[in-house]
Amino acid sequence: MTAAPPHIIITITAGLLVIGDEILSGRTKDKNIGYIAEYLTSIGIELREVRVVPDVEAEIVGALNALRNRYTYVFTTGGIGPTHDDITADCVAKAFGVSIDVDPRARAMLLQRIPEKDLNEARLRMARIPAGADLIVNKVSSAPGFHIGNVFVMAGVPSIMQAMLDEVVPTLKTGVKMLSESVRADLREGDIGTPLGEIAKAHTETIIGSYPFIDEQRGPNTNIVIRSRDAQKLAAAKREVEDMLARVKATLRR
Amino acid sequence: MTAAPPHIIITITAGLLVIGDEILSGRTKDKNIGYIAEYLTSIGIELREVRVVPDVEAEIVGALNALRNRYTYVFTTGGIGPTHDDITADCVAKAFGVSIDVDPRARAMLLQRIPEKDLNEARLRMARIPAGADLIVNKVSSAPGFHIGNVFVMAGVPSIMQAMLDEVVPTLKTGVKMLSESVRADLREGDIGTPLGEIAKAHTETIIGSYPFIDEQRGPNTNIVIRSRDAQKLAAAKREVEDMLARVKATLRR
Repeated sequence: MTAAPPHIIITITAGLLVIGDEILSGRTKDKNIGYIAEYLTSIGIELREVRVVPDVEAEIVGALNALRNRYTYVFTTGGIGPTHDDITADCVAKAFGVSIDVDPRARAMLLQRIPEKDLNEARLRMARIPAGADLIVNKVSSAPGFHIGNVFVMAGVPSIMQAMLDEVVPTLKTGVKMLSESVRADLREGDIGTPLGEIAKAHTETIIGSYPFIDEQRGPNTNIVIRSRDAQKLAAAKREVEDMLARVKATLRR
Repeated sequence: MTAAPPHIIITITAGLLVIGDEILSGRTKDKNIGYIAEYLTSIGIELREVRVVPDVEAEIVGALNALRNRYTYVFTTGGIGPTHDDITADCVAKAFGVSIDVDPRARAMLLQRIPEKDLNEARLRMARIPAGADLIVNKVSSAPGFHIGNVFVMAGVPSIMQAMLDEVVPTLKTGVKMLSESVRADLREGDIGTPLGEIAKAHTETIIGSYPFIDEQRGPNTNIVIRSRDAQKLAAAKREVEDMLARVKATLRR
């Protein structure tokens, strides 16, 4: 008798580093975290951690090193423009222990849209790229992002970040996509917490989350989200959740 | 001659820990980071770092300990409901090395709105409070948040979190409020990067940020935000920024 091959699922993980005083002061409301989270989930990469740090070298370098040593990929947003507070590229070079200078490829990219007479010291900052990095071209801005080791450095402006992410994604390893099913309970969280916890404990290869929300007719309601990389295990857990909901409803009706 | 007393500004800092798989999967778009950032800034507390972590004990405990050792205050959102994935209270107890059990004060709070027959095991989870913590009552939900050491544990649902923050804020030490002025440049970032960097370097007690945006008439435009806790220093830096903008515009017109 031959044993079935072990069921190996390779998980590809990511960390996200959001860089910018303006997010921490509340002046700018971040729109990149939710976008990147949803995008990575949809292609089978698991976002495991997000950090938001200010425009301070030691904070950026420390967070970047923490994340890049833990996750398959790290994405950064913000701090790659032409002004003095744009220090991301220098911080990435420092984190990797490599030099940084104006990159001829990046300078050429800038010159495609910026007349040479306007390519002043400030704009040339956007061509400063750590040694050994590859550029991330994009269709929205003349300035590139870049990619070094497992780190992808992108703009903070959402439309530019999104264009850069579109360029990057086809180059990434992706894991088995996490499948997800959502079940509307039509019950309060507190009515189902105990049996739902038992189902979660019994189904070790699924992740079951419970999300309360207010529905207009009934008041407090709950969405149950079941996630798994295995379609059969997902279906089995979903069936148990639905059976449990029916049982609880019958009990409450009595 | 008597020297003027040294100009001491006490900075009150904060870290924010957002807890929940649903944020990292992109299923739920966080609305708490921007709200808390803006609120803290408005009362003179400087938000220095945000982390988003999944519903995993080691991640929550590790991030909480990192943040509470670095900042005056730490706020957490999420994970204090009645279901198995609500593990924040247990993680906080673990981080502080204290026991956790159903708290009679929290149980009494729940009973104000929940009939005793409905106070099942799941709902009682919401009364599990680490030993030594104070409750955070709120006007929206029957379940309390809590406060232990320098950590404030709040709900993830924005309306409940906001009600809890309103209760917490009057108890906090606040620093000298960060003042802020915004100047619309009507110039591209790349045209002002170098002189703006020189102004930033010369004005050490101000923080100058540069934020590109697309304006409908002109295309690429820039907001310059100058921040300081000292009104005079803020005004001086703002004047220099305005003079610089006028100079750059005159040069470009030639």
